Amino acid sequence: MSVFASPAAFAAALADLPAPDGDALTAARAHQDELTKPRGSLGRLEDIAVFMAGWQGRACPAIAKGRTAIFAGNHGFTVHGVSAFPTSVTAAMVANFAAGGAAINALAGAAGLDLVVVPLDLDQPTADFTQSPAMSEAECLAALNAGAAVVTPDLDILTLGEMGIGNTTAAAALCAQSLGGSAAEWVGPGTGLDPAGVARKTAVVDQALARHGQGAPTPFETLRRLGGREIVAMAGAVLRARQLRVPVVLDGFIGCAAVAPLAVAVPGILDHCLAGHCSAEPGHVRLLARLGLEPLLNLRLRLGEGSGAALAVGVIRAALATHAQMATFAQAGVAAGL
Amino acid sequence: MSVFASPAAFAAALADLPAPDGDALTAARAHQDELTKPRGSLGRLEDIAVFMAGWQGRACPAIAKGRTAIFAGNHGFTVHGVSAFPTSVTAAMVANFAAGGAAINALAGAAGLDLVVVPLDLDQPTADFTQSPAMSEAECLAALNAGAAVVTPDLDILTLGEMGIGNTTAAAALCAQSLGGSAAEWVGPGTGLDPAGVARKTAVVDQALARHGQGAPTPFETLRRLGGREIVAMAGAVLRARQLRVPVVLDGFIGCAAVAPLAVAVPGILDHCLAGHCSAEPGHVRLLARLGLEPLLNLRLRLGEGSGAALAVGVIRAALATHAQMATFAQAGVAAGL
Repeated sequence: MSVFASPAAFAAALADLPAPDGDALTAARAHQDELTKPRGSLGRLEDIAVFMAGWQGRACPAIAKGRTAIFAGNHGFTVHGVSAFPTSVTAAMVANFAAGGAAINALAGAAGLDLVVVPLDLDQPTADFTQSPAMSEAECLAALNAGAAVVTPDLDILTLGEMGIGNTTAAAALCAQSLGGSAAEWVGPGTGLDPAGVARKTAVVDQALARHGQGAPTPFETLRRLGGREIVAMAGAVLRARQLRVPVVLDGFIGCAAVAPLAVAVPGILDHCLAGHCSAEPGHVRLLARLGLEPLLNLRLRLGEGSGAALAVGVIRAALATHAQMATFAQAGVAAGL
Repeated sequence: MSVFASPAAFAAALADLPAPDGDALTAARAHQDELTKPRGSLGRLEDIAVFMAGWQGRACPAIAKGRTAIFAGNHGFTVHGVSAFPTSVTAAMVANFAAGGAAINALAGAAGLDLVVVPLDLDQPTADFTQSPAMSEAECLAALNAGAAVVTPDLDILTLGEMGIGNTTAAAALCAQSLGGSAAEWVGPGTGLDPAGVARKTAVVDQALARHGQGAPTPFETLRRLGGREIVAMAGAVLRARQLRVPVVLDGFIGCAAVAPLAVAVPGILDHCLAGHCSAEPGHVRLLARLGLEPLLNLRLRLGEGSGAALAVGVIRAALATHAQMATFAQAGVAAGL
């Protein structure tokens, strides 16, 4: 059963976004102001607790069931030499995820998240977007629904990540198309491209923009023409999570680029999302600013796999621990208004 | 039994600092480069794992026994109205720590750290440092040793924090004396002082510097004249941890100011320390830069209690999880040199 049965259904979902629970927001903020600390002194931990309260719909939010979902896909444009690695690495890393040996396995474990890995037709790369749209309508819908399928109503939090050799190229194209700016402003070294490789990558993005940059009025069409399966799946997961009011932690440049077409078209679409971290990929700083997201962490990660998003869950858990466990002024007998 | 029996013993300890284990550093770095990720792509997580390896003296570091130590003290200069809160709040918050109701209780619990709270003669504030040295030699030594006493050789990590109404005032004085700059450059609003209060606080620091700013050649003398018991205790704990090669996570403005006199006198004294976070107190950014410390987190915390240091342990644990659990290229059968 498809959540997004057609481009029109996807557009309709984008036009009908639930809001956070106002009563829970109010109750959580009031509770924060009664805890034994100077008001506001826990900084963003206070904001996180209130954010989680709003989307979970309860004054005292918690993370009993958290999930990290990693989508993997391959890209036709890699024939142009835009990555330091061969596309076979995508499948090899998916096998590594399955065997428990990748960074995201350790980080999801440390964060107390279950890990769902979704390889998407790795033996059928998307079409080369310098020549044609990356995906057909059916392929794009399938990827959106693969993303939606990882989101269940019982999730207290969802973190997203990806694996796909070359996919910073698609991310740069999505950013330039959605937010403006030249290809060069959005293209970076990815996981280790040399300057000549960066120049090739920029030229590839320029070609894609020249072919698809005009007349792509909808988020769906932008994703279909310039995205990739793992990218589109993240967009589908973000929208499905919003429908179910599941809070989401976005990861790096690619995960944020995946939702850029949505964010431009639909103000507030990312209200249920936190930015887990700021990646070392140069375009991510600009992208976060344009999306209005302030990253929780900035530790020079540039791995992908949802690594920064999973890492940020430790901070979120700590925020919820203070919210749930601290004494109030009345309970502690400390002078009110500390 | 006192670790630091005299000012001379303290100075001797500062002059005899152990280095990290070079073999463990080399082995940990080599191991990082074999893990299934592009080299360097885990950013600071890689550096943290190697740092911990060096100080724990093993290629695969771990945190089985971690501790957060919180020192509390009261200050004579608070008669000048330099805090938004009465000094009675220090003892009230120590009681809150004991009852388990403070932020640090929740954050230490979330980080898997035991919590040791050390109130230091709360009913005997230090002398008003605008009139005389804050402490006698014996009082300063007692505080140093109270700090040293929380450090045991079995600790895998130690995080430090403090509670002491008014103590950003002493911290500003220590910074100005150790690192230069006017009082106004180091004084901030603390936990909520209004502009008139900040002006009073600046004047108090100016008076202290005028009285004690010259002729204080040793770290001990600077700490004795301008510090407070909880501040001096943190300095003692940092030095004792270095002697025992226990890695330390520093907290905010006050914890970093406590070691500023040591850092100026002894290059490398903070090599076993990480900065847990950057506080919202304005002087902390400048102080971190001067100490050569890059904070792990920047979440606008301004609470003290070691809250930012404890929070950072979640990141450190995640770094060690990747180091310990990830597969190597050989194990995963992924193309070497990813």
